[in-house]
Amino acid sequence: MIKIDLANSLSEKVGLKDGLNRRIFNEELAKNSNLVKKVFNLKNQSGYAFIELAEDTALIKKINGFVKTQKKYKWKNIIVLGIGGSALGGIALRDALLGSYHYLEKKPHLFFLDNIDPDNAHQLLKSIKIEKSIFIVISKSGGTVEPMALYNLVKGLLIKKRIKNYQKHLVFVTDPEKGILRPVGKKEKITMFDVPSKVGGRFSVLSSVGLLPAALAGIDISALLIGAKKMLETIKKSKPSDNPALILALLQYLLDVKRQKIMTVMMPYSNNLFRFGDWYRQLLAESIGKNKSTGPTPITALGATDQHSQLQLYNEGINNKWFIFLHVIKHINNPKLGNHLPVELNFLNNKKLGDVIDAAYIGTSESLAENKRPNITLHIPQINAEALGELFMLFEFQVALLGLLYKVDAFNQPGVEQSKIITKKILSKTI
Amino acid sequence: MIKIDLANSLSEKVGLKDGLNRRIFNEELAKNSNLVKKVFNLKNQSGYAFIELAEDTALIKKINGFVKTQKKYKWKNIIVLGIGGSALGGIALRDALLGSYHYLEKKPHLFFLDNIDPDNAHQLLKSIKIEKSIFIVISKSGGTVEPMALYNLVKGLLIKKRIKNYQKHLVFVTDPEKGILRPVGKKEKITMFDVPSKVGGRFSVLSSVGLLPAALAGIDISALLIGAKKMLETIKKSKPSDNPALILALLQYLLDVKRQKIMTVMMPYSNNLFRFGDWYRQLLAESIGKNKSTGPTPITALGATDQHSQLQLYNEGINNKWFIFLHVIKHINNPKLGNHLPVELNFLNNKKLGDVIDAAYIGTSESLAENKRPNITLHIPQINAEALGELFMLFEFQVALLGLLYKVDAFNQPGVEQSKIITKKILSKTI
Repeated sequence: MIKIDLANSLSEKVGLKDGLNRRIFNEELAKNSNLVKKVFNLKNQSGYAFIELAEDTALIKKINGFVKTQKKYKWKNIIVLGIGGSALGGIALRDALLGSYHYLEKKPHLFFLDNIDPDNAHQLLKSIKIEKSIFIVISKSGGTVEPMALYNLVKGLLIKKRIKNYQKHLVFVTDPEKGILRPVGKKEKITMFDVPSKVGGRFSVLSSVGLLPAALAGIDISALLIGAKKMLETIKKSKPSDNPALILALLQYLLDVKRQKIMTVMMPYSNNLFRFGDWYRQLLAESIGKNKSTGPTPITALGATDQHSQLQLYNEGINNKWFIFLHVIKHINNPKLGNHLPVELNFLNNKKLGDVIDAAYIGTSESLAENKRPNITLHIPQINAEALGELFMLFEFQVALLGLLYKVDAFNQPGVEQSKIITKKILSKTI
Repeated sequence: MIKIDLANSLSEKVGLKDGLNRRIFNEELAKNSNLVKKVFNLKNQSGYAFIELAEDTALIKKINGFVKTQKKYKWKNIIVLGIGGSALGGIALRDALLGSYHYLEKKPHLFFLDNIDPDNAHQLLKSIKIEKSIFIVISKSGGTVEPMALYNLVKGLLIKKRIKNYQKHLVFVTDPEKGILRPVGKKEKITMFDVPSKVGGRFSVLSSVGLLPAALAGIDISALLIGAKKMLETIKKSKPSDNPALILALLQYLLDVKRQKIMTVMMPYSNNLFRFGDWYRQLLAESIGKNKSTGPTPITALGATDQHSQLQLYNEGINNKWFIFLHVIKHINNPKLGNHLPVELNFLNNKKLGDVIDAAYIGTSESLAENKRPNITLHIPQINAEALGELFMLFEFQVALLGLLYKVDAFNQPGVEQSKIITKKILSKTI
């Protein structure tokens, strides 16, 4: 189970100007523990229904059944056409569980075309074998410009290449009833999966949106739900001072509102968890960044890499950030270093590489604390599907709580409409 | 040549509370134009010497000569062991000029091991053919823990695999005289290139640090210097109101200090320029994030992708950001969409994908301006080596100017030492 260490966010460590008094924080936890119950009670409501995804074992069966039917095609590439919440969860899963260099291995490759950059799309589509590729189009409304433009491009390619029964190269993940994509899929007899109507895009990783691409790429999706369910039980049963979601939510809220830590840096000490940080970046920004006055700005950083890029600013710039470290306890592969360095560096001889990154993490979290920059660490026993399930549910629940604390609707995103309207106007005029 | 459009940062567009009055801004440009001369006059000084890199055609010759000698080995992989300024410039070059999917093509692949994550390093090193790989170790001092740990790992591998004449698989890029790596290279007869002693890591992309890996991967490095030189001439000769470096520096400074835009979001509408944003993120953060009270926090975002992740916050959250858009005018490959979308989306039928991303960029920059969020755009005619040379030099010069405006030493990074000391202590104790 994931463990939270919040010592470096408390006044004992960073002072009262930048940290929280332990006793008062515990009182705040107790006072706000009703919010946890409130979120659970709302689980049938639109938005909050992400909680119910952890129970949907029927979906696991359905997806795994579909994956079996696909074995005969020996897909070499699984390519998701989706953007934002339709891509970020899947990318996080891929990098965490297949590794950020998975495309060098001889297994099927999982790609996400989550942009409409013409050079980028061209390079991917010309480098892979279309005949050996399955494309998953993900859009709840079917009206999102980016994936639909890409679908239009890919369908054109499939037809141009005269691929027989091109429908088998396509899967749609969309609203069970509404929207533009559903009737297209029905007419064309394309396999379709549902985006549950009460779940929003950025909370959808544990629905078909994240699970279908993951399962096709060989990820154990039932372990994901087991992890998510365990985390929900922990959140339900823990006393306030041990409740991971409540601790994360209240720390975030109080450090922002009372200590002016207006940016939240998520910094995994793991390449494979870096894109999990990007998933969280959407979740926090779109859910809480509202009303002209609320919402921390999320930032993703990578340990140890960004010690040599951002740590100068973090340690000596304006003290306006809070840091969430993700620390992996056991590395699955942990190569041993040689014995080839001169005396000045002999502390690196015969070490394991994991010892070095662990020491770097401690160096950074402690130096930040010494400079009165509050930070916390999530210690993750090992990166696997169950741990990922725990992490997704933990942060989704945190953000649902933050909606209540900040008194904003965590499940809408009115601020993206204006740009879409202008974009459509431009494209409609130039026909 | 790159063109800057600053209309969306002026009060005419976003109001005086969040933007700058055009007349006053022009006066400020004139008043501060002496700073441009000052930077040029300092070009022999430590730090400022990055300016001289644009003139170093002898280095181009030397590197291209070395690349010729390597042809016979038919390297399949060029792997840089370096972190921070030793990696970010090279990564920016690779993605911009080879494309972010270059590893799917049949050319030599350029990798950057810029972290000490054991699972990540293991996955790369076991997936490639070591016998077909050349490793470039980049560390000015030779004392940086991360690349030296990786060098120790790789040298161990080369020996374990009994590769004959393993020295030919290694190149060092390090200080011309000082440091730990130079004597090791001399003793082992390993080819070495210099990091110029007066140039800091984050300003070193146009030295061997960025040029050597780029040239080995087939990039036209002389065009890079031509672009950099052209940009320097433009900066030298333009009148203040047309001077791109001065405009960028003063806008950044005034919007931060006078309009509380304490975050700077660099948002290229191009996957291939996304990592250029990461290069700039280090340049700005390490150079200006100092003294507990100065320095904007740089953020990298990707258009159009992050419209579906961060735009909600950017448009409706706290108005504390300034945005730099990188807009590519001509896409080298611009696939045409099909004709397969239903009537609701027929504005996407028969378009080019580039039309769609262009419309998305306009939609976002205009919606931000309508919400009084100041932003500028750099219009880049086309992504090529010359344009990259222009961009690197433009932003390096901007940051040198920012050092003078903020009155900080732009070329040191004292804030990263503490973490290094703790890390070394931990590793030394556990031997």
